[in-house]
Amino acid sequence: MTRVPVTFVGGDAGDWAIERIEAVKGAGLDTAPRLAVLEGSADASSPSDRWALHGVTSHDRYLTAAERSELRAVQEMLGRHEATHAALIPIRKSEAWWELAQDERRAIFEERSRHVATGLEYLPAVARRLHHGRELGAEFDFLTWFEFAPEASSTFDELVFRLRDTEEWTYVEREVDIRVVRDPRV
Amino acid sequence: MTRVPVTFVGGDAGDWAIERIEAVKGAGLDTAPRLAVLEGSADASSPSDRWALHGVTSHDRYLTAAERSELRAVQEMLGRHEATHAALIPIRKSEAWWELAQDERRAIFEERSRHVATGLEYLPAVARRLHHGRELGAEFDFLTWFEFAPEASSTFDELVFRLRDTEEWTYVEREVDIRVVRDPRV
Repeated sequence: MTRVPVTFVGGDAGDWAIERIEAVKGAGLDTAPRLAVLEGSADASSPSDRWALHGVTSHDRYLTAAERSELRAVQEMLGRHEATHAALIPIRKSEAWWELAQDERRAIFEERSRHVATGLEYLPAVARRLHHGRELGAEFDFLTWFEFAPEASSTFDELVFRLRDTEEWTYVEREVDIRVVRDPRV
Repeated sequence: MTRVPVTFVGGDAGDWAIERIEAVKGAGLDTAPRLAVLEGSADASSPSDRWALHGVTSHDRYLTAAERSELRAVQEMLGRHEATHAALIPIRKSEAWWELAQDERRAIFEERSRHVATGLEYLPAVARRLHHGRELGAEFDFLTWFEFAPEASSTFDELVFRLRDTEEWTYVEREVDIRVVRDPRV
């Protein structure tokens, strides 16, 4: 897994029009008309930016080799032509989560909350990329970016609903749900 | 585990006198008279710095709850009065390592290389703190800092010798071994 720093900027620029920003748990984020997804470490901040969220792609932290093979066999890449809808879901987990040992976190994540198995049911309709922010000292521990076709929107809603109804989710102390559509003018 | 950014600077300043810098695998680091250990994100770089290595303390990535309890029962804190000797061992692992899934890395790390079990034999003589650099895009994936009393120096040499004679170590593509002593004038 190549390390790619990514910044998601809410402001007046970017390829994605923001449809709604929902504070699911804890503080939300200011409203903004557009979302820009900036790959690489170039800092192109503008005075019109309302917020900028930082993360970096990294190696998988919980997946077994078998689970990863299952995912890779069916998952789709980002940037599909038909995937004109997307969601950015920034999450911060509690100190109690980070104080758990690896085997305890894994057991909650998969054996008890079925994070991977549930996500697998929604492939290949939903494409996904995870960005880590915790080691960067960023505002959120995770920024997950999802892309899907318009007709998969309600399917995607079901996925996030199920993931929020798990033991793992009790360790989430802040979550924002940002829905966007690709700007047809771009 | 609190997130503490730490920078290790080789140059003309700092509480530790550098005794030797050995390139164990791959490129070494320039020689310097002193090592400074700077906690926090303040950047106080000086023209006399030869190098600055960045990392951040983070949660444990492989330890089970049982292993962590064993370690915590016997490990000592940094900063002991008698621990006047220290080692900084920066390591970068190969892409092949980072491409492995979590269960594969864990199996190599502990079930086959006995990283934790071996380290445990050297507690409480050797105190240790691990810093992660990979997510920061730093020069090394890991910076491990060890402190021990002078009489534990050969014991510490044995520990690093044993850890280098493992399957896990075949995934190390760069390692430098920096030995320092606390400056008696400080």
